[in-house]
Amino acid sequence: MKIFNFSAGPSMVPPPVMKKVQEEFRNYNSMGIGITELSHRTEEFAAIIDKTESNIREIMGINDNYAVCFVQGGASLQFAMIPMNLMSTGIAEYADSGYWSEKALIEAKKFGEIKILGSSKDTNYDRIPSVRKWKLSSNSSYIHITTNNTVYGTQYHAIPEMVGHAPLIADMSTDIMSRNIDVNNFGLIYASAQKVLGATGLAIVIIRRDLIERSEGKNLPTMLDYSTYVYEKSMHNTPPTFSIYFLMLVTNWLKEQGGMNAMEKINTLKSQTMYERIDASPFYTNFVVPSHRSRVNVVFRTPSKVLDEKFVTDAEKEGLIGLRGHRAVEGLRASMYNSMPLEGVEKLIDFMNEFELENS
Amino acid sequence: MKIFNFSAGPSMVPPPVMKKVQEEFRNYNSMGIGITELSHRTEEFAAIIDKTESNIREIMGINDNYAVCFVQGGASLQFAMIPMNLMSTGIAEYADSGYWSEKALIEAKKFGEIKILGSSKDTNYDRIPSVRKWKLSSNSSYIHITTNNTVYGTQYHAIPEMVGHAPLIADMSTDIMSRNIDVNNFGLIYASAQKVLGATGLAIVIIRRDLIERSEGKNLPTMLDYSTYVYEKSMHNTPPTFSIYFLMLVTNWLKEQGGMNAMEKINTLKSQTMYERIDASPFYTNFVVPSHRSRVNVVFRTPSKVLDEKFVTDAEKEGLIGLRGHRAVEGLRASMYNSMPLEGVEKLIDFMNEFELENS
Repeated sequence: MKIFNFSAGPSMVPPPVMKKVQEEFRNYNSMGIGITELSHRTEEFAAIIDKTESNIREIMGINDNYAVCFVQGGASLQFAMIPMNLMSTGIAEYADSGYWSEKALIEAKKFGEIKILGSSKDTNYDRIPSVRKWKLSSNSSYIHITTNNTVYGTQYHAIPEMVGHAPLIADMSTDIMSRNIDVNNFGLIYASAQKVLGATGLAIVIIRRDLIERSEGKNLPTMLDYSTYVYEKSMHNTPPTFSIYFLMLVTNWLKEQGGMNAMEKINTLKSQTMYERIDASPFYTNFVVPSHRSRVNVVFRTPSKVLDEKFVTDAEKEGLIGLRGHRAVEGLRASMYNSMPLEGVEKLIDFMNEFELENS
Repeated sequence: MKIFNFSAGPSMVPPPVMKKVQEEFRNYNSMGIGITELSHRTEEFAAIIDKTESNIREIMGINDNYAVCFVQGGASLQFAMIPMNLMSTGIAEYADSGYWSEKALIEAKKFGEIKILGSSKDTNYDRIPSVRKWKLSSNSSYIHITTNNTVYGTQYHAIPEMVGHAPLIADMSTDIMSRNIDVNNFGLIYASAQKVLGATGLAIVIIRRDLIERSEGKNLPTMLDYSTYVYEKSMHNTPPTFSIYFLMLVTNWLKEQGGMNAMEKINTLKSQTMYERIDASPFYTNFVVPSHRSRVNVVFRTPSKVLDEKFVTDAEKEGLIGLRGHRAVEGLRASMYNSMPLEGVEKLIDFMNEFELENS
């Protein structure tokens, strides 16, 4: 049976990538050794990391004002590295749009004063807090947003225009390379790679080069200082070699598919199709303000917790897996990142139709 | 041609492990999805991380006084996490036995006063600094050693007995599970897993549970606080799932081979065979004090730099790769961790014999 994996991450990887990794797993580049056995100080690995970076630059349109870094520790380590490196005035501003943005701001409080620009906590994070209502400080070190909220299924459809203000920092763990964005609008973009990009144990950090100076004189731990990654090209110590290789293949695939333009188109279609089905009958509900609905994580419910659980179990029997909602909110969630084909969404909708018929 | 990979790390992996990963890469546990696509919040992944921990406990004889943690960032991040978490008196003591121990102590200076217990820098790190000459402070937070020195090819054959003193902390990145050790002699053991254990992007941290309290009240970044890993069983955020799975397979293999006893025996034999060959003629030289020679990284030279380079190139043609010395010292190095069979060492020695005949 063909499996469609709707897990929020680690998540589905394009089948041609999985096939390629498997095929060459024990014999990378005809060297007679496997990719996991390849020293990071070889020409062959240098070619891998260079290609991965150039793919990311090409896909996202990143110019040389920005450095692209590969860091371990996930987005959660970035929650600390960002204030450690960039909190220059003692104050930073965070928009609170849900679970992960809240985690980011709580961590940042260890390093300075955090002003909340807006929060949708009162309405159970059913929307993105209004950017128009932001009251910006004049002395903020940076402004932090979470562009897509995996747990609650909301997304900034328009990125706040912050040119002329403090640098905009975005956690894009679940929507990086899933749609068009203008990198020049940001001071720093970070993303754990195991979600949209399928590579576990790796985070991508795209940082505007002038911001690196902010850590000068702070005597930060070497592995927590962005300058280490920028000046040593993410090779200060052994990088997560397999994950970087994996990311090279995923970004190769992404380029072949047509890059961010193509992804925006297909992701819009996939999510619209899902939301139309959810809205078509009262059996399924989605609580998000329609204009803030995420194009990659569709959160929904059946009429009861019992039916939600039955939905997950029955769907698994049809090869539709990973549909359980995040433990913080329960319910159901279909994560449909770049790797999920329209076919998978259509199969899910067929199943939703049958399930409603049988259980309503 | 059969390849023997003498790289210091990432390095050779047991062929049955590579075969198993390849075989099930796209269909883990008959789930129809690949291991890299498996959510860390599944029962299947819980079984993987539990099995990996229990393998490590069994192989090393670790009792419940110790926690076993899986951390990203390599040994280099541990260089900072150790003093951040464990520097309780403002002073710590480090033995300086070479490249990596020096890096560890330089990093630690960011967090307190570092006393050098002994250094072999004056003799170009040709030995382990004498433990008998250590003058221990009464107020040290901990004592740090690097049990095997990958760059210079030295190793503590006897681990200092530190019961009754400050906790002993050891970087075992290149000799963990390669020989018998008594974990109870240590406060903390850490090791990046891509060397002896073949799993990139992962470090193992074995910590005596009472030491975790030292970070209380320090308000450390969540991802840099050992208590996060201990209390959340290394699952605070998405762990490097593929690397942990890989480590499970390597430790399964290690148990099948007979564990640390068997490894000590074969590693002793392999290294003795190599040192006997090196000592058998003046063409090859090893500068290490014989009783301090590493059993896993054999560092040697031919009569000239030109011949060293020719050795590397000619050996590659015979399928013997990764023999170039560390960039800090040059020369030659054969890293022969657990995965390197005696057959590989014998093939290297045959080549050394031929090379000497042709070039002397």
